[in-house]
Amino acid sequence: MTLNRNDCLARDTADPLAPLRDQFALPEGVIYLDGNSLGAQPKAAAQRAREVILGEWGTGLIRSWNDADWFTLPRRLGDALAPWIGAGAGEVVVTDTTSINLFKVLAAALHAQRQVSPQRKIIVSERSNFPTDLYIAQGLAHLLDDGYALRLIDTPEDLPGALGDDVAIVMLTHVNYRSGAMYDMTARTEEIHASGALAIWDLCHSAGAVPVDLNGANADYAVGCTYKYLNGGPGSPAFVWVNKRHQDTFRQPLSGWWGHRTPFAMQPEYTPDNGIGRYLCGTQPMVSLSLVQCGLDIFAQTTMDALRAKSLALTDLFIELVESRCAAFPLTLVTPRDHAVRGSQVSFEHPEGFAVIQALIARGIIGDYREPHIMRFGFTPLYTSFADVWDSVEALRDVLATKGWDKPEFHRRGAVT
Amino acid sequence: MTLNRNDCLARDTADPLAPLRDQFALPEGVIYLDGNSLGAQPKAAAQRAREVILGEWGTGLIRSWNDADWFTLPRRLGDALAPWIGAGAGEVVVTDTTSINLFKVLAAALHAQRQVSPQRKIIVSERSNFPTDLYIAQGLAHLLDDGYALRLIDTPEDLPGALGDDVAIVMLTHVNYRSGAMYDMTARTEEIHASGALAIWDLCHSAGAVPVDLNGANADYAVGCTYKYLNGGPGSPAFVWVNKRHQDTFRQPLSGWWGHRTPFAMQPEYTPDNGIGRYLCGTQPMVSLSLVQCGLDIFAQTTMDALRAKSLALTDLFIELVESRCAAFPLTLVTPRDHAVRGSQVSFEHPEGFAVIQALIARGIIGDYREPHIMRFGFTPLYTSFADVWDSVEALRDVLATKGWDKPEFHRRGAVT
Repeated sequence: MTLNRNDCLARDTADPLAPLRDQFALPEGVIYLDGNSLGAQPKAAAQRAREVILGEWGTGLIRSWNDADWFTLPRRLGDALAPWIGAGAGEVVVTDTTSINLFKVLAAALHAQRQVSPQRKIIVSERSNFPTDLYIAQGLAHLLDDGYALRLIDTPEDLPGALGDDVAIVMLTHVNYRSGAMYDMTARTEEIHASGALAIWDLCHSAGAVPVDLNGANADYAVGCTYKYLNGGPGSPAFVWVNKRHQDTFRQPLSGWWGHRTPFAMQPEYTPDNGIGRYLCGTQPMVSLSLVQCGLDIFAQTTMDALRAKSLALTDLFIELVESRCAAFPLTLVTPRDHAVRGSQVSFEHPEGFAVIQALIARGIIGDYREPHIMRFGFTPLYTSFADVWDSVEALRDVLATKGWDKPEFHRRGAVT
Repeated sequence: MTLNRNDCLARDTADPLAPLRDQFALPEGVIYLDGNSLGAQPKAAAQRAREVILGEWGTGLIRSWNDADWFTLPRRLGDALAPWIGAGAGEVVVTDTTSINLFKVLAAALHAQRQVSPQRKIIVSERSNFPTDLYIAQGLAHLLDDGYALRLIDTPEDLPGALGDDVAIVMLTHVNYRSGAMYDMTARTEEIHASGALAIWDLCHSAGAVPVDLNGANADYAVGCTYKYLNGGPGSPAFVWVNKRHQDTFRQPLSGWWGHRTPFAMQPEYTPDNGIGRYLCGTQPMVSLSLVQCGLDIFAQTTMDALRAKSLALTDLFIELVESRCAAFPLTLVTPRDHAVRGSQVSFEHPEGFAVIQALIARGIIGDYREPHIMRFGFTPLYTSFADVWDSVEALRDVLATKGWDKPEFHRRGAVT
């Protein structure tokens, strides 16, 4: 039985999440398959920014640190985000960037290891990890200048062979930004712990996208961003989670005044706050930070079970349609077919992937490209419809057939995140 | 000759900066003397946020990284800010927080010293420095765990005695957040260099408030915030300046992908960008970051000479009026009378300073309080009038005379930044 567009429309009609799409501002003529890079704009965001700027800043002025509870916002947002990553209250703060938060937890984890196993000086990660994670680990190792080094595995299957009594930390991204492949967090964490290492998980492509259970997996530390599936806005502050057993055992090195136990006592000596508060550092960008709540407010209207079911249905449909309707073209599926290890995106390789993506964008189908040759399509169940999937595949087929993508204007390389 | 309110009104009439006040949203019934803590809201900010949220984010979506030049915004803002701190193009980026940026330059300066004078392990600063500066230095020293330590002086006069061949860095805040006292940056930098140390200046209470000439002073590194005198918005991202001679000599440890030479090539190895770009780290909060331009746009309509002349006139007037009209009360001037060493605020000690400030705030005169006993009043020539100064002093006199401030509700300690 061959699927057609009406079948997709019927699935939209039956989709319990379909009404949530109305809460996002999506431009006319665009099918947005890049929510894995920058989430769409909740319609509430502009009004929320107006309240923060005109009311809290303009009228409240300095009083808003108390009256609008600005100072506690990183913790309040952390508590609101926590259930979506299997964390509890007081375990998450929304603050700074993913890179900065990773530095904090890497330093914390290395310090923890130094107390018990000073010979463990290796940080294991994946060559295909999002580069900033590797760069931050390199930066910390370079700063410490004491034998710390990064060991990179080429595939997830290489992990067991990379573990050993010299490994302090394993730092993995739960869902790979390029392939969309997902680790079994529980099994891998257990394996990492059995080897004597600590597990840091990067949830940039997981939070709000797939089920995550940090406490259930007994993970040690996690970081992630809020501007992808969580729809917090461009560059909205990131989050950091620390397992309660580690929270009070370390004073992380980015020890700014927001992490002090009594920040307004203005003591010259740093005394870390108890709990997750010590992972705060400096004053946060309140307008951008406030908008994170707008995304979380939409999540609060559904469940991860519902989101995951639709995400898998969307990605299954996309794979099925591409493979059946674009079979004449040299497309190779990169993302796992197995639901258990698939994130909420689908990546296909094509020898002219960059140009094909540019041609699609010119037609209003926004995916993105990652070196080498990978076309990424993100599926965000809050605002992507089954008809969107159908129309995207039709556009892809048309682009591949007409070769409109081989015009020179589609070959300019630019900044795409 | 005794001044009266009409004299102040006459000075406002003659004030060439007076028209700029119209570009700020200031609430009815409030005299805002806390722009040294959080600057007032440029009226352009709400519209700018709307454009970024609805246009750049909502409609542009991921394309805005290119089309709206989001990726270069930290550098563009840095170039726009540079002339106000005596810096050149390509020397400043607006990014992250003051605390984070201080960590970057402290690590860079320590590394630079380690190459030439590894025995230099002391960071000199002031006990009365804003605490986060001390906390960050402590955090770095603790992380390096190699004999690095902080040496605190009690007064600026103690600096010469604290220098020596064990000192790697002197880290000073140009204008003290509590007293409003200002260092002679050129003379002190020369003295620091003569001793073999490097000079890091914190400009949080200087940028946009007083003349700063980083290159003229031959300073090494500087950091500062944009949310005080620069009116960038609550927690708007901070800036970092690095003298060109140091820019390419170090790979700072918060080496995230935004500081990579080719961030979109997604290489597993970090290669620092040339120049100030390597002081970038992770993805920036674009809504908050964009608003920094609104404050700078108002600065572009005047000069630092004009701002400084009015700032000194305002602070002179405030001191004169408080000392003449509140002479019956136990107020002690903390801020220097000497223009050469005065920032753009005036601090008075009063034994019940906290309660007095609360009573003033209840009357719409917003200053703030700093332990112990210090009442701070910031004077921001872009939007503070001479009549504001008169009215504030009258309110202060009234509060002190009626002792309304000794009611219990004015004694609740809360978060004030």
